[in-house]
Amino acid sequence: MKKYSEMSPEELEAEKELLRKEYVAWQAKGLKLDMSRGKPSVEQLNLSMPLFDILDGKSLMKCMNGVETRNYGQLEGIVEAQHLMAEIMDCQPEQVIVCGNSSLNIMFDTVARGYMFGFDGCTPWCKLERVKWLCPVPGYDRHFAITQHFGFDMINIPMNEDGPDMDVVEGLVAADDTIKGIWCVPKYSNPQGIVYSDEVVRRMANLKPAAKDFRVFWDNAYAVHHLYKEKSKILNILHECEEADNPNLVFEFASTSKITFAGGGIAAIACNHNNREELKKTLTVQTIGFDKINMLRHARYFQDVESVSKHMERHAKILRPKFELVIKTMEEDLTGPGCGSWISPKGGYFITFEAPKGTATRIVDLAAEAGVKLTPAGAPFPYHMDPGDSIIRFAPSLPPIEELEEAAKIFTVCARIAYLEKLILAKAE
Amino acid sequence: MKKYSEMSPEELEAEKELLRKEYVAWQAKGLKLDMSRGKPSVEQLNLSMPLFDILDGKSLMKCMNGVETRNYGQLEGIVEAQHLMAEIMDCQPEQVIVCGNSSLNIMFDTVARGYMFGFDGCTPWCKLERVKWLCPVPGYDRHFAITQHFGFDMINIPMNEDGPDMDVVEGLVAADDTIKGIWCVPKYSNPQGIVYSDEVVRRMANLKPAAKDFRVFWDNAYAVHHLYKEKSKILNILHECEEADNPNLVFEFASTSKITFAGGGIAAIACNHNNREELKKTLTVQTIGFDKINMLRHARYFQDVESVSKHMERHAKILRPKFELVIKTMEEDLTGPGCGSWISPKGGYFITFEAPKGTATRIVDLAAEAGVKLTPAGAPFPYHMDPGDSIIRFAPSLPPIEELEEAAKIFTVCARIAYLEKLILAKAE
Repeated sequence: MKKYSEMSPEELEAEKELLRKEYVAWQAKGLKLDMSRGKPSVEQLNLSMPLFDILDGKSLMKCMNGVETRNYGQLEGIVEAQHLMAEIMDCQPEQVIVCGNSSLNIMFDTVARGYMFGFDGCTPWCKLERVKWLCPVPGYDRHFAITQHFGFDMINIPMNEDGPDMDVVEGLVAADDTIKGIWCVPKYSNPQGIVYSDEVVRRMANLKPAAKDFRVFWDNAYAVHHLYKEKSKILNILHECEEADNPNLVFEFASTSKITFAGGGIAAIACNHNNREELKKTLTVQTIGFDKINMLRHARYFQDVESVSKHMERHAKILRPKFELVIKTMEEDLTGPGCGSWISPKGGYFITFEAPKGTATRIVDLAAEAGVKLTPAGAPFPYHMDPGDSIIRFAPSLPPIEELEEAAKIFTVCARIAYLEKLILAKAE
Repeated sequence: MKKYSEMSPEELEAEKELLRKEYVAWQAKGLKLDMSRGKPSVEQLNLSMPLFDILDGKSLMKCMNGVETRNYGQLEGIVEAQHLMAEIMDCQPEQVIVCGNSSLNIMFDTVARGYMFGFDGCTPWCKLERVKWLCPVPGYDRHFAITQHFGFDMINIPMNEDGPDMDVVEGLVAADDTIKGIWCVPKYSNPQGIVYSDEVVRRMANLKPAAKDFRVFWDNAYAVHHLYKEKSKILNILHECEEADNPNLVFEFASTSKITFAGGGIAAIACNHNNREELKKTLTVQTIGFDKINMLRHARYFQDVESVSKHMERHAKILRPKFELVIKTMEEDLTGPGCGSWISPKGGYFITFEAPKGTATRIVDLAAEAGVKLTPAGAPFPYHMDPGDSIIRFAPSLPPIEELEEAAKIFTVCARIAYLEKLILAKAE
């Protein structure tokens, strides 16, 4: 097939006419498909139903060191849940505080802690004229929503194939003490599925920030969320920070939301001793303790080292065909015309489509009018502003595969139409 | 028996000698009893074990309006949990946001919201030179810990038999716009067990604060926690605030921590529409949603209107004898000597002993040395400073009744010794 960019105006018009017909036919079906959020499917949720058989009316409710899970106390979480979350995060149990149901909530609270009370004896951020935050882009919209809510200036950091551009990060944090943090999703990043290389992790751990209270927010959301047998590994950031004599640099986060139940699992923060003691000063005022019963349920369900891994393979078996279907549809429909590009992720929850510049918003709108809800264009950027208007996040997990097939088809039709419109307009000028 | 205050120095010494012997005998037993925190007993926790039979591996996990409880979303909580918490708080379901496991955490977050982002368009409290907070005393130590953590100036408000002294409250809030809030436990107050009268609730709802962002923090922690068939009632504060044309004045809080499991239940905030929409602006950034599965478990367990009430009667059956035992021991041992005073609460979790002035710290120390851990003297006051050194909070719920019997006996011995010491010292001067 001829690339669109090599087509004559007449050829472009003819191709557009063809695709318009296909588009109208899809519209006529009156579909209603949602690819907008990284939610697990019902089939995936069903995998964890045995969790509800773990505790019954006759269960022993004390945890392994004798703590009663049904009563107040144990601020750091029960010891077996600390072990489980440490295993998922590849860190030490004593570095972990197991909290409630949402790692996003812990991240918000940790930013809020810096804002209200400060880290490491520094001025609380609420008392400063200006706070800046580094945002590798494209990234997770809900991270950016947090730093926007606090009124921080968000600075876009380009993503390379192996993580954020560390030349840029190093230069900025060394020069500017109003930069207080960076958002990172180090494994199977949201939305590109990028895995940080050892070099990137080491350079992150070795940052020399001008601000003593600069912190790396390490959202290890997809630590065990592999799509394939070959599992990507990243270096242990807490260990690397210690090696780099930078032990206070990082807060790591994870949850079981995409292991067991989304919003019904357990979440945790891991950090070094000093950070931990500092967090606990606020935590001990904020709550008498988190839900230890759900911790017990999870820890008893995932008893041995291998059980998390086996469980995640079951997820992968459901997710893999969905990812592959979308990639295959893109390859079949978009490679020929030379329309955009994409990465085939090895894990995580998203596929990023990089559309021809200036067409992302149009693609999302076209898809919406044909009944396919995509994540809004711009969403993976601070202030929802994609400078190139080209990044679209595709979330293939939630819909059943037959719906996904339709959605992917509609999507590639929309992508091609938008690209054709762009080329036609360019030729006309 | 002769009142201690009427005894001669010789009589006082003789009585003290007698009690000292008794005290040493108790010490010799090497007991280790904890009456310091309002924790439910194991017997009470066992009442709710059937909760774990509500969901199993085959349960339907959608709630009544079709929302999938195992996936993200539904920021306000599932509708049946809103109904349950509204029933407990005696308000409307649409006024309720059901959150995580801890009402204290919601209170902290609500104060933090005012501190970071402000209420009602007012300057966030973190930007102000000074913030003051009204603290009816004695009160709940963990409330005071929150406002102390934020660095607010806490002002003691005297408690009358029917609630806070409203003359004082009205005068202060009308005159000083740096006063931003008041802590209230309106029913079976912590620690005195006081129930706010209709007049107090109405005057609270009709406050005319100088600060537009002044808020009443209405911790309805013991809303259904009656010890007797005769149930104390309070007016619905949300309704009264609306009647008073003061709809934004109040945030109400409650949890099932002392209904089902302490730290393993569900918690909620209730407020009017404007406050609710304002809270949601932050909540929607802070989390993708709270644990809806535990909400579903609770809502299905307490299906009909009467089931909460019946469940609480089972709690009362366990708690009542404990409260009565402590009161009876105080009556038997302390009425004669005229040593201190106390209120017999009709609900809640505490008994307050008002010791002779200047003896509370001594009593707590004496008890500790005899193996009985009491809430530290001063704890029910801001900054842990009891101006009269006379208030002791007694928490009878946790220990088994035979331990409680010993603890109460030891307690009255300590109270009498401390009083005798005081009288002997006074006579000597």
